Amino acid sequence: MRKARNPSSSSSTTTTAGGGGGGAAAGMRVIVPLQGVVQGSGGLVLGSVIPCALFYFLQLYLKGRGRGGGRAPPPEVEAPSPPSGLQRVHSRALLSPRAPGGPAAVSSRANAIVRQREGPYYEGLKRAEEDIFDEVENPNGVIQLCSTENRLLWDIVQDWLTDHTTRLITGEELSITGITSYQPFDGLKELKTAVAGFMCQVVGRPLFSNPAQLVLTAGTAPAVEILVFSLADPGNAFLVPSPYCPDLDGDIKWRTGVEIIPVPCRSADSFSLSITALDRAFNQAKKRGLRVRGIILSNPSNPVGVLYSRETLYSLLDFATEKGIHIISNELLVGSTHGSEEFVSMADIIDTEDHDRDRVHIVYGLSEDISLVGFRMGVIYTSNENVLSAAKKLTRFSSVSIPTQRLLISMLSDSKFIHQAVGLSRDRLQRMHLELVNGLKRLGVECMKSSGGFYCWADMSGLIRPYSERGEADLWNKLLSIAKINTVPGSSCLCVEPGWFGLCFSTLREKEIPLVVRRIKEVIDACTSI
Amino acid sequence: MRKARNPSSSSSTTTTAGGGGGGAAAGMRVIVPLQGVVQGSGGLVLGSVIPCALFYFLQLYLKGRGRGGGRAPPPEVEAPSPPSGLQRVHSRALLSPRAPGGPAAVSSRANAIVRQREGPYYEGLKRAEEDIFDEVENPNGVIQLCSTENRLLWDIVQDWLTDHTTRLITGEELSITGITSYQPFDGLKELKTAVAGFMCQVVGRPLFSNPAQLVLTAGTAPAVEILVFSLADPGNAFLVPSPYCPDLDGDIKWRTGVEIIPVPCRSADSFSLSITALDRAFNQAKKRGLRVRGIILSNPSNPVGVLYSRETLYSLLDFATEKGIHIISNELLVGSTHGSEEFVSMADIIDTEDHDRDRVHIVYGLSEDISLVGFRMGVIYTSNENVLSAAKKLTRFSSVSIPTQRLLISMLSDSKFIHQAVGLSRDRLQRMHLELVNGLKRLGVECMKSSGGFYCWADMSGLIRPYSERGEADLWNKLLSIAKINTVPGSSCLCVEPGWFGLCFSTLREKEIPLVVRRIKEVIDACTSI
Repeated sequence: MRKARNPSSSSSTTTTAGGGGGGAAAGMRVIVPLQGVVQGSGGLVLGSVIPCALFYFLQLYLKGRGRGGGRAPPPEVEAPSPPSGLQRVHSRALLSPRAPGGPAAVSSRANAIVRQREGPYYEGLKRAEEDIFDEVENPNGVIQLCSTENRLLWDIVQDWLTDHTTRLITGEELSITGITSYQPFDGLKELKTAVAGFMCQVVGRPLFSNPAQLVLTAGTAPAVEILVFSLADPGNAFLVPSPYCPDLDGDIKWRTGVEIIPVPCRSADSFSLSITALDRAFNQAKKRGLRVRGIILSNPSNPVGVLYSRETLYSLLDFATEKGIHIISNELLVGSTHGSEEFVSMADIIDTEDHDRDRVHIVYGLSEDISLVGFRMGVIYTSNENVLSAAKKLTRFSSVSIPTQRLLISMLSDSKFIHQAVGLSRDRLQRMHLELVNGLKRLGVECMKSSGGFYCWADMSGLIRPYSERGEADLWNKLLSIAKINTVPGSSCLCVEPGWFGLCFSTLREKEIPLVVRRIKEVIDACTSI
Repeated sequence: MRKARNPSSSSSTTTTAGGGGGGAAAGMRVIVPLQGVVQGSGGLVLGSVIPCALFYFLQLYLKGRGRGGGRAPPPEVEAPSPPSGLQRVHSRALLSPRAPGGPAAVSSRANAIVRQREGPYYEGLKRAEEDIFDEVENPNGVIQLCSTENRLLWDIVQDWLTDHTTRLITGEELSITGITSYQPFDGLKELKTAVAGFMCQVVGRPLFSNPAQLVLTAGTAPAVEILVFSLADPGNAFLVPSPYCPDLDGDIKWRTGVEIIPVPCRSADSFSLSITALDRAFNQAKKRGLRVRGIILSNPSNPVGVLYSRETLYSLLDFATEKGIHIISNELLVGSTHGSEEFVSMADIIDTEDHDRDRVHIVYGLSEDISLVGFRMGVIYTSNENVLSAAKKLTRFSSVSIPTQRLLISMLSDSKFIHQAVGLSRDRLQRMHLELVNGLKRLGVECMKSSGGFYCWADMSGLIRPYSERGEADLWNKLLSIAKINTVPGSSCLCVEPGWFGLCFSTLREKEIPLVVRRIKEVIDACTSI
């Protein structure tokens, strides 16, 4: 799911830290070019130093204004007028004018991309961002329950970085050639080995048993997109069990020309995927003349948080084999399971199904399980030689920078830290999930039983009038406007039953859960009193 | 151009450093999970620890074998057999088998991508990689003159990193929320300001005068691709002056469905672009039913190294206005000019052409000018609101990780360092370029006058028999096989005149230039003695 970008409690810290450093740096940026003027040597001539200095002063001034503005968003930087010192060799009048041939139109797909991302989910994110909750500075602000950002491990990750980065970047482990030269776009071999070892620790068995089959990407979004590019041509389609994360739409469709056929999952099946529904969706797509190239599932499912059973995974593989299609299994949240249920990966299944290896492709990412969203590292694991080869070439558009890879090699290889992080994450997830579920239960709101991920998937269908998408949107709006709680309405995830809401708890602090429950109660009381 | 990925002199350092650290880390990785067995607590149960430990031992063993192998490429890691401890709930026989529906085919575009990148340029890179020159270990190996990697500043960048990273990552400037939380995909505001300031220092005037119009991407390849996606639909075309960098083909065509119409530049025009040739190519495309959406140029041109004159840029803008098309100006090498000629950016031109701002989009990157390829940061600068909006959304597939952004904010804001780096880079480029040009001149080989970039564009047409692409390929092969010099044959860059070769000098050490010249002499002597 899309993430809260500037949550107040954190962004204020960021702004202070970054702003302070930036202020000093900006000061230095002003002084140093001016030294050139005084010293009169060193390559920068007077005519070039002055416009630069003016530019720096402008930035400094704008920064100062932005900082003074408190919680208001900093103003966009305006364009200074062209520097007067710049000489023009020719005036336009000297050149033969040509007749203008029309405006500079952008592509249809760019227009579509610009227009997309509307609807309550994106509206809520925007409204929450403008008035975000902060315990001290904005206690009546909007609480963001719409994010999959995992803040539960920020404390220990901060400690690790403090302890390790010095030696890492400046010390004996790193040489300039390792950090600034060209390396394979698909990731350093050492990092692939470290990722495989890390996954082994997370699930307790070697899921990525052959690190040479890993491709590293700049986040999970490009990992999914690269697989879609590699498996499907424009006009083809993928079956996607719904409800699914709203951002997946763009990852699959925006640039590839590929379509999504949602496969509805229902509350009566605990939102698990049924092969009958899959078969029906496949046949409907066929009737529409669409060639289905595969299924894209998330396991644990996101946002519902259900794990796929071993039986379902086997049936899925059977289905894919029969239809000659692929399976992309997004296992982004594998390390964020919190129930007693066993997690089974598609990698476990294909280990016993030699002839079907070629049709299974796993996506993973470091953003969630160990609170490293800013590192933006995604993973593709595939045995299919053609997909592997195409994906490696396509990472030239989505590669992870080497300093970050070096940092990750060190962190993921630190088994003691990972052991602690994985355990702590599960404990905290379990506790907070339980607390929110119980809090909602006391209000008469039941949550779907879930075993993974950062969401409670809450049934508020009894509170919506009418029982429709409109009723759901109405309640969502009340939650946001009255209770100041930003949730994910089920319709944003293409949930076919109205009245379900996703509530992300991984960005909250534990003590904030009672506040969330109290705020929701207000709206429920208002709904039920009518 | 594509880069030498594992130059011996550097990769040996990397391997030693990384290998040493990795060895220790691997040792720890083995010990720590086993502690779980002894202590019998902490979340990892016996059944899961043992397969992990086995996995680690296997990695350790393979790493050890790889290290002992000296210059041989390390063996691919093999898949261990599925862990015996893993329980199977159902045997496959219990599940209803379905008839297989055919193999798991990949997309046509993936097949095309897998097949692409053939021809002498890519063959040369591969052969050079297998037998790369090293002064001590492989003095008869292949010298790579096929890369655009700039190693001329490795010394000072290393010093900077050593001095600054400690405070940066662990100190007061950085908080955990700034490094691990979600930030805008299109880059931190502070980094955009730093990039604008940096560019101002590089060219001596504010080229990116409005930092809010910057979009940061994971390298220049995605910057170009995102613009192509935003400006053109499948089946549309771009005009690209040739010779052009071989990698550009993939950046423009692979995923977008867009075509390239080369616009030939000739030696008689010093390989400058003529508007007549542009007009001809435009009309030919139109006749073929292709809709041309723009021109993609590199300035300084790559690999030739010619700067676009102010007049040509004005004429280009006139042409684009008349035809209603866009201009993508790749100014990747703006800080790597080394002649006395003035560099004029498209940004300078549009500063006087208000109504045409919307059709000009500038690409920049940090890979070359300050030896930071591994940081993989590209830049788009555009005033077109639609393009800006689409590009920002598309950076979700190509974002730069936050630790790297933080590092860059600090580095690019350090005016004193940048001042030193820019000056040093020009001095070194100038000296090495001159030395290679003069060395070749003594052999009777003339180079095109160039003012920027890392290549000498050498005319060896007098040495090829027959005067054709075949003769050129033959000489290229002799240079690689006999002289062990890997060059870029002009045909790889779609140069219409046979016999031109690109020789990159920015990965050489200055003292290696005489050796390069000596080696080329051998082949020339053999050619002329026939």
